[in-house]
Amino acid sequence: MGEQTSAGFRAIDPRTGRPIGPELAIDDATSVAAAAARAEQAFDAYRATPPETRARFLEAIADALESRRGEIVAAAVAESGLPEARIGGELGRTTGQMRLFAATLRRGDWLGVRLDPALPERTPLPRPDLRLRRIPVGPVAVFGASNFPLAFSVAGGDTASALAAGCPVVVRGHPAHPYTSALAGAAIAEAVRACGLPEGVFSLVSGPGIALGQSLVRDPRIMAVGFTGSRAGGLAIARSAAERPVPIPVFAEMSSINPVFLCPDALESKAEALADGFAASLTLGAGQFCTNPGLVVAVRGPALDRFVAQAGKALAASPSATMLTPGIHAAYARGVEARGQVEGVAQVAAGLVGEGENQCRAALFVTDAGRFMAEPSLSDELFGSSGLVVACADEAELLSLARALEGQLTATLHLAEADHGVAARLLPILERRCGRILCNGWPTGVEVSNAMVHGGPFPSTSDSRTSSVGSLAIDRFLRPVCYQNLPAALLPPELSDDNPYRLPRLVDGRIETA
Amino acid sequence: MGEQTSAGFRAIDPRTGRPIGPELAIDDATSVAAAAARAEQAFDAYRATPPETRARFLEAIADALESRRGEIVAAAVAESGLPEARIGGELGRTTGQMRLFAATLRRGDWLGVRLDPALPERTPLPRPDLRLRRIPVGPVAVFGASNFPLAFSVAGGDTASALAAGCPVVVRGHPAHPYTSALAGAAIAEAVRACGLPEGVFSLVSGPGIALGQSLVRDPRIMAVGFTGSRAGGLAIARSAAERPVPIPVFAEMSSINPVFLCPDALESKAEALADGFAASLTLGAGQFCTNPGLVVAVRGPALDRFVAQAGKALAASPSATMLTPGIHAAYARGVEARGQVEGVAQVAAGLVGEGENQCRAALFVTDAGRFMAEPSLSDELFGSSGLVVACADEAELLSLARALEGQLTATLHLAEADHGVAARLLPILERRCGRILCNGWPTGVEVSNAMVHGGPFPSTSDSRTSSVGSLAIDRFLRPVCYQNLPAALLPPELSDDNPYRLPRLVDGRIETA
Repeated sequence: MGEQTSAGFRAIDPRTGRPIGPELAIDDATSVAAAAARAEQAFDAYRATPPETRARFLEAIADALESRRGEIVAAAVAESGLPEARIGGELGRTTGQMRLFAATLRRGDWLGVRLDPALPERTPLPRPDLRLRRIPVGPVAVFGASNFPLAFSVAGGDTASALAAGCPVVVRGHPAHPYTSALAGAAIAEAVRACGLPEGVFSLVSGPGIALGQSLVRDPRIMAVGFTGSRAGGLAIARSAAERPVPIPVFAEMSSINPVFLCPDALESKAEALADGFAASLTLGAGQFCTNPGLVVAVRGPALDRFVAQAGKALAASPSATMLTPGIHAAYARGVEARGQVEGVAQVAAGLVGEGENQCRAALFVTDAGRFMAEPSLSDELFGSSGLVVACADEAELLSLARALEGQLTATLHLAEADHGVAARLLPILERRCGRILCNGWPTGVEVSNAMVHGGPFPSTSDSRTSSVGSLAIDRFLRPVCYQNLPAALLPPELSDDNPYRLPRLVDGRIETA
Repeated sequence: MGEQTSAGFRAIDPRTGRPIGPELAIDDATSVAAAAARAEQAFDAYRATPPETRARFLEAIADALESRRGEIVAAAVAESGLPEARIGGELGRTTGQMRLFAATLRRGDWLGVRLDPALPERTPLPRPDLRLRRIPVGPVAVFGASNFPLAFSVAGGDTASALAAGCPVVVRGHPAHPYTSALAGAAIAEAVRACGLPEGVFSLVSGPGIALGQSLVRDPRIMAVGFTGSRAGGLAIARSAAERPVPIPVFAEMSSINPVFLCPDALESKAEALADGFAASLTLGAGQFCTNPGLVVAVRGPALDRFVAQAGKALAASPSATMLTPGIHAAYARGVEARGQVEGVAQVAAGLVGEGENQCRAALFVTDAGRFMAEPSLSDELFGSSGLVVACADEAELLSLARALEGQLTATLHLAEADHGVAARLLPILERRCGRILCNGWPTGVEVSNAMVHGGPFPSTSDSRTSSVGSLAIDRFLRPVCYQNLPAALLPPELSDDNPYRLPRLVDGRIETA
């Protein structure tokens, strides 16, 4: 991605296939090592800052991004091919994430403070004074994602949560939007300076190719990795991280087909409305969402036929949309062609042919449950506006299909009150296979909040125990340390008796809010 | 380990090298698969039990263990060679762990409940109703450790924390104490029946050899692994887990040399007392503790000479002690011999020669910091009562040595008030390299409580983000799931508005205790 020039590289406008924007410098292994060294050098000073200092820093980043809104939105629209309204909204989401983590820092529960006071008189053995806090793991590598040039990129959720935790961040900017990345990086660097923090708290490395990211993951100073992208990319990074002399955790969000179950009564009573909602969710942003609803499952019958007919009609009338990169478009076109050639799979609709380069035409396929469960490729994510409707013989087959699903970011149920029985049978199956279950909605649109989970069992992510969206994401970059019988003078402020940061604490097994 | 017979296998008494106890059946891949299938079958019913039901179940296990105290202690003493007083105390610790997790279950914070109420009027987009809880990951494989035949074995901390989380457990019993394992397993099975829980909530598989454990880790129904043992063993299990079609997390506690730093003023004022304390900690349980203080670091000088002289005297007078298995004893003897042959390393004391088989003779070595940092084998754990004292030229070299340390379970500082300066410089280095920092004590003796961390950076464990001792250990077996716009009738009780379990919750960003 990006076009290499004699002195650097430039972005490609996906609508035209032509290079655009300024020529940007290409980083190499030396600049990666320098960035990691700066991050390591900044770590101790940065992690010692009070939560309030880091909260203000995150707010300063949000302000700096806002103050460059025009420039950033223009660059991201040009480099991603996404509409201006979407990118404008994404900038708001990106600054909102920074502010959510500022609020999280001030709440303080993320530090996980626990105090077990000494019991010197206890028999047979006294209990020492034990105090626990969580500390940041160290410098974190963040890989910008192609499909959210702001919210999952340089100043995105991985960066926000790592900075909140107290970890310096080195971002490997996505080569599909290098100038957007540079602008967001400049905003963060400005906030670093304005807040008087060490320069190494944030660095951005850029350039085409995969070697840059691999050097970053292998750098011994990097202690964790946040990644959003393809399954192949995520697995390659996880492999490199596991092969290091000191392995490190990788939080890779990789692939998901986000099954949608249409329960009988809901389907019967509103097949057409569901079909329209599905088509709208499937084609949003050219289908380039991790939570795109790529799979619809229901019991076969006239109601499902109505759903398929209406979804096909809606998708056949859907305009094409520019995809993020020529590579993503080529993979989509190949994937759609291959899917149509799978035995027992029929393509029932294709979207309108578009003008310009890298146009995504929506595609709708149908098959039956036996075929779906027998053909592993039908469970693979096909990134773009391609959906597959699977018809099941009966509820038993639908439950079998649910049990056969791989790990997913989301699972959706459309249900009426009469469907509560089948839903209750589906829920225990689905919650073991996904990170978020939603009813009577569509999985695209991920709220950035405290109760959100954007994560899930393999292969949707490489580590299902946390989330990459919402305040829970901070957990990824913290680990607990216990301090036993430390003199009061040597205790970190988080653990001192007078609780200067007014943190919620678990004291001798009782929850105390500040 | 264990002696194989025509129809099964028997334990070896490490004091005599002779087989003892009843002949026990050998499990194989078929019985492992059956146990995993039973665990999978039990999972949904078990995880749906209210926290109070599981708390009573853990208490029933504690009661069942207590009711078999005489039999269990006799078996564990015979099979481990550890003294009766130690094993008696360990049984109390084991039942205490069960009761700590019962209290944790009743507190409810481990569920991590978060509610973000719907904001239907919000612009530009309404917020859906979002509710988060943590759910158990699925059936868990636990590997019993040799060195704690009760507290880190069949009914040990891994089993207690997984059962508390709602995960069925399949234990691979350590072949060095098979009859102890069978008795503890029978106590748990009795509690399962008494509480009316599905049989598959707990299974024990036993036998010599490593194939049994590998089949367990590879079984697709197993979703996480708890292990305490050698670095080689832990890494082999982690590799198998990573190579599965669906990789799973492994919580392996592997190796640690638990550095002890003697700060100048403390050393000067009480070198002899420190030496006696060190010798006592080093020889406790024949040095067979994960937290055994294998490394002492100080600035060279007369005070350190006094420490070494007194420690040597104490260790030279220390009686030998039976090690857990012939294999552990052979590795210790080989390790001590090899260490004495490292250039620049001198053995300054050896413990008394003992009677009987598999006797651990304490060993004390000295070297200097340059040698220690240049010779990687000196950082390897030497399981048993072997200690290494490293003399540094000055504080700067001592800090360099601290920076060169691998990940550790613990680090210890002995300090007087005049040492607070050097301690403040050491602490930020040490907390990045360990899970517990203690002052003016010895790392052996791990309190089972809420604020304990028994874990640490690689290679001390394979995942530094949690603990294998204390109530934090439950986190290993949970992952978050978000429920979006679920009808109230379908919500799990943990997430319903009326909060029937009286759980602490984060509601719209505010902490609410019940």
